[in-house]
Amino acid sequence: MHVISEQRLDGGVLAREFTLGEIPGTLWTPESAAPAPLILMAHNNGLPKSAARLVARARHSAAYGYAVASIDAAGCGDRPRSADDEQARAELRRAMQAGEPVDEIFESFIGPLVEQAVPDWLTALDALLALPEIGGPVGYSGWTALGIRLAVVEPRIAAAGFFAGGYVPHAQRAEARQINVPLLFLLQWDDEGNPRQRALDLFDAFGSTEKTLHANPGGHIGTPWFEVEDGNRFFGRHLK
Amino acid sequence: MHVISEQRLDGGVLAREFTLGEIPGTLWTPESAAPAPLILMAHNNGLPKSAARLVARARHSAAYGYAVASIDAAGCGDRPRSADDEQARAELRRAMQAGEPVDEIFESFIGPLVEQAVPDWLTALDALLALPEIGGPVGYSGWTALGIRLAVVEPRIAAAGFFAGGYVPHAQRAEARQINVPLLFLLQWDDEGNPRQRALDLFDAFGSTEKTLHANPGGHIGTPWFEVEDGNRFFGRHLK
Repeated sequence: MHVISEQRLDGGVLAREFTLGEIPGTLWTPESAAPAPLILMAHNNGLPKSAARLVARARHSAAYGYAVASIDAAGCGDRPRSADDEQARAELRRAMQAGEPVDEIFESFIGPLVEQAVPDWLTALDALLALPEIGGPVGYSGWTALGIRLAVVEPRIAAAGFFAGGYVPHAQRAEARQINVPLLFLLQWDDEGNPRQRALDLFDAFGSTEKTLHANPGGHIGTPWFEVEDGNRFFGRHLK
Repeated sequence: MHVISEQRLDGGVLAREFTLGEIPGTLWTPESAAPAPLILMAHNNGLPKSAARLVARARHSAAYGYAVASIDAAGCGDRPRSADDEQARAELRRAMQAGEPVDEIFESFIGPLVEQAVPDWLTALDALLALPEIGGPVGYSGWTALGIRLAVVEPRIAAAGFFAGGYVPHAQRAEARQINVPLLFLLQWDDEGNPRQRALDLFDAFGSTEKTLHANPGGHIGTPWFEVEDGNRFFGRHLK
């Protein structure tokens, strides 16, 4: 892991930009001397780790006492996109604007995007857990489809917070029953891009005996701030 | 208000049994010197104020810093029941055991029970707010149907936590859109006595711009304890 830059933020949080081979990442760590539990934070559908809402959540959780890390995995964020990806994204935008069904297009590029992203997240996890300021266990927060895949393949993930979940590839819908870690599933009730009933069906499908649904009115980006605090307390119950 | 007995509990909470005319009640107050916000706590469908789960919640919220009060309103808890009520309850038990539809029976005794209970709760509210150790504003927690009615008629109620909500009389379903205070709506995902879809429809119907749904797996009495703590924090945001 190669640290490119570091910055001390309000609340004593240290933000470090790093690279790990081709993978760019950011690590936010709290001021405390003891090793902090780690939360992997991923933005829905491969949006960049630098997106303002993700950064705000990450800083808040770091100030609360967690080490938080995000990466731009293969095909995500600022990483190069294949011509197929670019074409699928353009087609998705066109279909959404035209009010056409988007399931097949979504599947055609989110399915492969999840598959490609997983190895980079696992590489990052190994490197992060080798740092003395980070201890186990590990939480995951954010992008539902990636989180399902990671929780299925990676036993070090002990608790997960998922957001939205209306559009999730077939493969991850089928895997939901295999999830057995405590879950906090956060849903925006009027999320235009995430059909409510599908999200409720996904919540129903998760195999975890401890799973909690939180839903609030409003669209995709309208999640109230107190849900970030609820998320911190959820991880506080399980990352010890 | 006539205090019958008082008891000092763990955490400095003072529990007082009182009567107010025919109305028996319990008031739990925290140790703090400053006037505490009040939470009215009612058990679903008129179950007694002495029920163990209600008492546990009330004590916890009082230790957290709230004054909590519960009463046995007319027709509820240990208050006398009319012959009609007794017959409707017997018929409900029979129908539920036989797996028959219970909507009409439920409506026939819960509808009037809510109507009868409201004046006693308003009487209690006036008396409680006259005590020097209690300040405004007022929260409500528990029985959904009664809470809808109280929130509609009583502007001093500033926030409400509702539980279950699968069976709610027609009158209160129709009133749900009039509710405009912040809500925390708590649902047990597999509550055999409260059809899930109806509870979700009720959440959808509430007029409040701030409303949050919390759902957890399991049956009616399986609510995890952390929801009591979440409820305290919800009131903490709104009863100031």
